[in-house]
Amino acid sequence: MSIVVLHGSTRDGGNTEQLAELVLKGIPHENILLRDKNILPIHDLRHDEGGFCPVEDDYDVVIQKVLEHDVLIFATPVYWYGMTGILKNFIDRWSQSLRDERYDFKGLIAQKKAYVIAVGGDQPRIKALPLIQQFKYTFDFVNLPFQGYIIGKASKPGDIVNDTRAAQEAQWLNQVLRNP
Amino acid sequence: MSIVVLHGSTRDGGNTEQLAELVLKGIPHENILLRDKNILPIHDLRHDEGGFCPVEDDYDVVIQKVLEHDVLIFATPVYWYGMTGILKNFIDRWSQSLRDERYDFKGLIAQKKAYVIAVGGDQPRIKALPLIQQFKYTFDFVNLPFQGYIIGKASKPGDIVNDTRAAQEAQWLNQVLRNP
Amino acid sequence: MSIVVLHGSTRDGGNTEQLAELVLKGIPHENILLRDKNILPIHDLRHDEGGFCPVEDDYDVVIQKVLEHDVLIFATPVYWYGMTGILKNFIDRWSQSLRDERYDFKGLIAQKKAYVIAVGGDQPRIKALPLIQQFKYTFDFVNLPFQGYIIGKASKPGDIVNDTRAAQEAQWLNQVLRNP
Amino acid sequence: MSIVVLHGSTRDGGNTEQLAELVLKGIPHENILLRDKNILPIHDLRHDEGGFCPVEDDYDVVIQKVLEHDVLIFATPVYWYGMTGILKNFIDRWSQSLRDERYDFKGLIAQKKAYVIAVGGDQPRIKALPLIQQFKYTFDFVNLPFQGYIIGKASKPGDIVNDTRAAQEAQWLNQVLRNP
Repeated sequence: MSIVVLHGSTRDGGNTEQLAELVLKGIPHENILLRDKNILPIHDLRHDEGGFCPVEDDYDVVIQKVLEHDVLIFATPVYWYGMTGILKNFIDRWSQSLRDERYDFKGLIAQKKAYVIAVGGDQPRIKALPLIQQFKYTFDFVNLPFQGYIIGKASKPGDIVNDTRAAQEAQWLNQVLRNP
Repeated sequence: MSIVVLHGSTRDGGNTEQLAELVLKGIPHENILLRDKNILPIHDLRHDEGGFCPVEDDYDVVIQKVLEHDVLIFATPVYWYGMTGILKNFIDRWSQSLRDERYDFKGLIAQKKAYVIAVGGDQPRIKALPLIQQFKYTFDFVNLPFQGYIIGKASKPGDIVNDTRAAQEAQWLNQVLRNP
Repeated sequence: MSIVVLHGSTRDGGNTEQLAELVLKGIPHENILLRDKNILPIHDLRHDEGGFCPVEDDYDVVIQKVLEHDVLIFATPVYWYGMTGILKNFIDRWSQSLRDERYDFKGLIAQKKAYVIAVGGDQPRIKALPLIQQFKYTFDFVNLPFQGYIIGKASKPGDIVNDTRAAQEAQWLNQVLRNP
Repeated sequence: MSIVVLHGSTRDGGNTEQLAELVLKGIPHENILLRDKNILPIHDLRHDEGGFCPVEDDYDVVIQKVLEHDVLIFATPVYWYGMTGILKNFIDRWSQSLRDERYDFKGLIAQKKAYVIAVGGDQPRIKALPLIQQFKYTFDFVNLPFQGYIIGKASKPGDIVNDTRAAQEAQWLNQVLRNP
């Protein structure tokens, strides 16, 4: 079982990354830092005659990497009660993958499992619930089983260490990922 | 009372824009097409010594334009059960505006009124509700009164004309905007 | 096409009933006032050997009445951001109907269509959304298509007449029910 | 610090009660089994001249008991994606308490802390989120701080022991309640 973490954070070593590290402690995995990739917003041409055009950026390479793994962990800070724009632009591009004839996106992604790690500052265990619901709808659309999520609370750098509940949940998820 | 529509769509003349046109029929307003602007993802430096650095893109000009108006209409297609990445990147940058000493973002935006127009293809009147809740939390955070929203249903280009309910709600909002 | 309105209100002629009247204007329908029925809370015996026992109250008669119709309209004031306890007790009893061998509850209800009318005082178009989501999950569980909902805003008796938006939506639903 | 658990379950020793026991292990507390009380649905007379009439049932005694404690734990099975009708009827009556001049309901309840324990069978960590949001709105309305919630998954009697995640969260909450 191989694991990839898709990081939606915009800065190095922030609270979300720290919580992800706790979750993955001692478990081999690949990290993809979306902030270091060039991923353009989707240009919706679904309904144009030619369909989507190839886009010159890093999306193809990243999505191929993602699809090589069995477990997808989406790790995002909660920005304005949603995922970061960086991660959203990445997911928006799935609409293109769904129509890409070079690979069977829908067939492949349905064989994986998804987890979400989200860290926010403003009552995240309540106010990040719409974000969790959106992930659920999104994963359902591509038949990707949503296996669980962890919500952490942190604002200033390093704050996450004070969230004992998130720490305990990270431990739970660590166990689950070790013994799938 | 002056009105600005922030368009999050990625293509010209799509269903969301059509519904927005219906809402604004006969009412002067400014359109801002975010897809034609260069707006970079936020680089979160809130906690760095120097704070946020100036960013060389169109964000400053756009946010200044927005703040000149009294009514802000956020018009976005529902992509993967959320706003488009384009619009999300724009809103993410508000974190920077909140700390920008060149103008009083929080003071100014609290004097406006907000509306949302969202158009989706997959049961939007249910599955776009998390998006509406996110807008609510977002507007609450900056004390921007959320005056109402319209959800339309459409997938293929032009579909929106078949959504008689959305049309009727557009008429309602048109009346409201004419007689504030 | 025959229509039944299930009223969850606790008082006569309240705002929710007024909005329902507007929706049904000129359309034949049956009203069921749950407050005038004796419907006991469910006693969950799903897992007991004997299963559910017959209960001596009005539930059986009411659910039989409901199942005679094609369109089910659930009309409830928003109490504490949910449906009224009266209506909740009624729906809780569906668990019993699902196991009642005297009639095919699941088969029958899946052939109907459902609408919801909800009226609340505290920002209902935002704060009644969890209630709408619960109705959606509930209807999905029994494969009852959720055709639409109207949310009205009112606190004091008669307030609903000031909600021009709800009035317009009532008109929309009236048209839909006339021309199914 | 004294603790009361309000049980909304309809049967003895069910999964919700078991999870509540785990949370309270070794901690003194009072249990109130709402199913053993006679609590009538509210009859909304807010707007009548005489206001609410005294109701001959157990509500007054129960709410007085509740208000004697510092920590209120609402433990409910998830029935049809909401709290049970039994518990809902109890909360609906708060509208009456808000207008009861014999005691200062709003003043008293704002000094307490609330937790929620909810156990459901159908994807509760997703589909019970609207219920959590309703509790949040409800507690906010009376300024009762919502300190946390635990969602467990179980259908058949005893199932809850297989939910290792809920067990770990119960342990977390047990620690919190011991060291307030």
